[in-house]
Amino acid sequence: MSEQVLRYLQTNRDNLLEKLANFLKIPSVSTDSNHQQDIEKAANFIVTYLHEIGFDLAEKQPTNNYPLVYAEYNGAGPEAPTVLFYGHYDVQPADPLELWKSDPFQPEVRDGRLYARGASDDKGQVFMHLAVFEAFLKTEGKLPLNVKVCIEGEEEIGSESLYEILHAKKEQFAADFAVISDSGMVAKNQPTILYGLKGFTGLEITVTGPDHDLHSGMYGGAIRNPIMALSHILASMKDKEEVVTVEGFYDGVEPLTDDERAMMANAPSEDFAKAAGVDQTVSEKGYTAVEHTMGRPTFEVNGIFGGYQGEGTKTIIPSTATAKITCRLVPGQDPENVQQLLEDHIMKTAPAGVKVHVEKEKLSAKAYKVEPDHPLIKKAAEAYSKAFQAETVYVRMGGSIPVVEWIQALYGMPIVLLGFGTPEDRLHSPNESFPLDSFDKGMETIVYYWQAVGNQE
Amino acid sequence: MSEQVLRYLQTNRDNLLEKLANFLKIPSVSTDSNHQQDIEKAANFIVTYLHEIGFDLAEKQPTNNYPLVYAEYNGAGPEAPTVLFYGHYDVQPADPLELWKSDPFQPEVRDGRLYARGASDDKGQVFMHLAVFEAFLKTEGKLPLNVKVCIEGEEEIGSESLYEILHAKKEQFAADFAVISDSGMVAKNQPTILYGLKGFTGLEITVTGPDHDLHSGMYGGAIRNPIMALSHILASMKDKEEVVTVEGFYDGVEPLTDDERAMMANAPSEDFAKAAGVDQTVSEKGYTAVEHTMGRPTFEVNGIFGGYQGEGTKTIIPSTATAKITCRLVPGQDPENVQQLLEDHIMKTAPAGVKVHVEKEKLSAKAYKVEPDHPLIKKAAEAYSKAFQAETVYVRMGGSIPVVEWIQALYGMPIVLLGFGTPEDRLHSPNESFPLDSFDKGMETIVYYWQAVGNQE
Repeated sequence: MSEQVLRYLQTNRDNLLEKLANFLKIPSVSTDSNHQQDIEKAANFIVTYLHEIGFDLAEKQPTNNYPLVYAEYNGAGPEAPTVLFYGHYDVQPADPLELWKSDPFQPEVRDGRLYARGASDDKGQVFMHLAVFEAFLKTEGKLPLNVKVCIEGEEEIGSESLYEILHAKKEQFAADFAVISDSGMVAKNQPTILYGLKGFTGLEITVTGPDHDLHSGMYGGAIRNPIMALSHILASMKDKEEVVTVEGFYDGVEPLTDDERAMMANAPSEDFAKAAGVDQTVSEKGYTAVEHTMGRPTFEVNGIFGGYQGEGTKTIIPSTATAKITCRLVPGQDPENVQQLLEDHIMKTAPAGVKVHVEKEKLSAKAYKVEPDHPLIKKAAEAYSKAFQAETVYVRMGGSIPVVEWIQALYGMPIVLLGFGTPEDRLHSPNESFPLDSFDKGMETIVYYWQAVGNQE
Repeated sequence: MSEQVLRYLQTNRDNLLEKLANFLKIPSVSTDSNHQQDIEKAANFIVTYLHEIGFDLAEKQPTNNYPLVYAEYNGAGPEAPTVLFYGHYDVQPADPLELWKSDPFQPEVRDGRLYARGASDDKGQVFMHLAVFEAFLKTEGKLPLNVKVCIEGEEEIGSESLYEILHAKKEQFAADFAVISDSGMVAKNQPTILYGLKGFTGLEITVTGPDHDLHSGMYGGAIRNPIMALSHILASMKDKEEVVTVEGFYDGVEPLTDDERAMMANAPSEDFAKAAGVDQTVSEKGYTAVEHTMGRPTFEVNGIFGGYQGEGTKTIIPSTATAKITCRLVPGQDPENVQQLLEDHIMKTAPAGVKVHVEKEKLSAKAYKVEPDHPLIKKAAEAYSKAFQAETVYVRMGGSIPVVEWIQALYGMPIVLLGFGTPEDRLHSPNESFPLDSFDKGMETIVYYWQAVGNQE
């Protein structure tokens, strides 16, 4: 029964890839306000697509910032279940540009991979769903279930508008369950059920010393150096054994069960060191790298800057130094509470002679976990296995998808994370890419899944 | 006898200030290779000036980098002493530009101060000497002593070429003594004899973790964060009591005598905290801020950068982090040795999972000290007091002038630091300026000094 749908996807593969390329060419970078028009373009692309293939409703819903693409298909009839499908059309900045082998916004296929910013996160995965919708409608004339499409343009900047609209329009988004394709598999061609995600919080520290850069010869020895002060603060937050030393940080953390540790030990994991090009991995004292990335909270300094960064030497005591910090949280941790613990620690640790300002990340999220044996999860595992011809594994992951927490908290509907990214995709990095065979098998998985959970006639 | 010289300077004050303005308008920034032509322009300005006022010889001497301005006046006759006058025509970068109240290269007088990059360091002070040469030659037709002029264009980038040329052309620079005006007074209108300067060394640390920026959700917990690694390294080099904790750093440091500590306690010192806009000063445990700045070694991080520095949040583990470090040294410390101690400490402290590269600053300098009661020093003190109508104080300072050490080491000639900068000049900072009355009294001091040390007929 699914043959003609799958055949459609195969026969039209080139057109679909070309269409995806056009989608990827739009530099819809949400962290940079100069890309406002590109954001609109990307949203329009999806609306037009859904109209063309026959969705009853497809529109850009205005927000305080970037538009949300909302669409509805009700052709499966009142008896059929309704799925809320979520994805995002915005992408991370492409910098540093000089490290890209090809233009991040001129998609290029090399060695069976499609290289472009957003190829995997998340335009590529969103497009697979659009293509599957097209295949069903162009062959069977209908989808096996009713669909509500929710594709936002602010995922990479915290999904603020989505958060507001989810609260404001509760019935609009009401559905029987949700499907999100913004995650990955533990290895290429290894179908993976993601039953746990990390929460997220962050803040920015700015240390201000002198009100202008000072000559280090005239003032060195009298004035506190803000970079050194910041270094003391940062070094006091995580030790060399990768243990976060902020008081209370681990309070309430749900411990890993022996079963989970066994499962994590057996889960096929990439070679982290090889993928990162380092000589060894490091992880929290008492935990393996896999356990730490999957099931323990993390603390990262994402960026730091202060003083002279140009050619040569400039003998100054700089006026300010800034560090950007984000944490990934596990079940049992409250993001706002963790954020407060971090701020308290920073203020307590700040040395005399400098002023410290902490800018709290506005949006944060709790961690997420589902029961691996939920029927909707089981059917997803079966669809995966059928398409990829391999047994599906169950894992937790270090990533955070705030919307997962919000949908769960607001609507209490089951959420299925149908992810197809691979560890080699280089999300958020130069040379992001997505394997073409994952593109094919991923669409096949989605076809099987809609049929499995949809109306069986 | 000096009346007509002084009168000339007063009568021609406006012309001289306009001429100085033209000198300051040339953005001769040596740390930025884009300013090569401006460097040449600034050198040409001096050569032309010296020709016009009647120097026998004035030329740009080529180097591997920026030209050295060399000139000779031998009109005082074989009986008269010969002075080697040193200064520099290059300036520090002006960034951050947005903090300047007026264009750094469009000199502007506000409240009796001349605002421009280089107004004090060192174009303003160099120009005062040129103007005094002019005044003598235009009125008395001769200078009281023979002069060798040596004005370089690489002081702000380490004076590499000067170092080579001083070694290569020893007899060219041979003189009875040297005068350098590239320093300051402890307070405006407070004549100051600088009898000690600090040495200098530095290095740049680059910590490399993953070979590309990593998604903090996928790799956080497995990969060492280079910014955190760098923070641990930096924090281990100087403690919160401003004591450098690098093993051996203080070995051989010449201790401050009770006399010096008493003199430093009495020396009129600026209010460091007020000048820097901080709520309090900090200094090495056991030493006052004045003692630390004048007579104890210092360690400063001049700049730091790594990871994401743009708008908003980017959840990455960055690939690299870099810090620029310079130290000011005192008598008894060997720069190369200190540099090695720093590198050893850094390598020893570097945590597993990252690579650390140390780039050593090529040029460093030993500290400098002269006997306060040397006759050439005493005559300088008298000239100061006569011009500024105030008693001259004796101090050491935290600044470093490598050329001072080189001239001393190579030629063993006495060196007189005839500085006129004031603590409010904001050297190396936005809104650098120089007080106009220091300009007048400074030139007066130089006139008295040349007459005092020159040929008395």
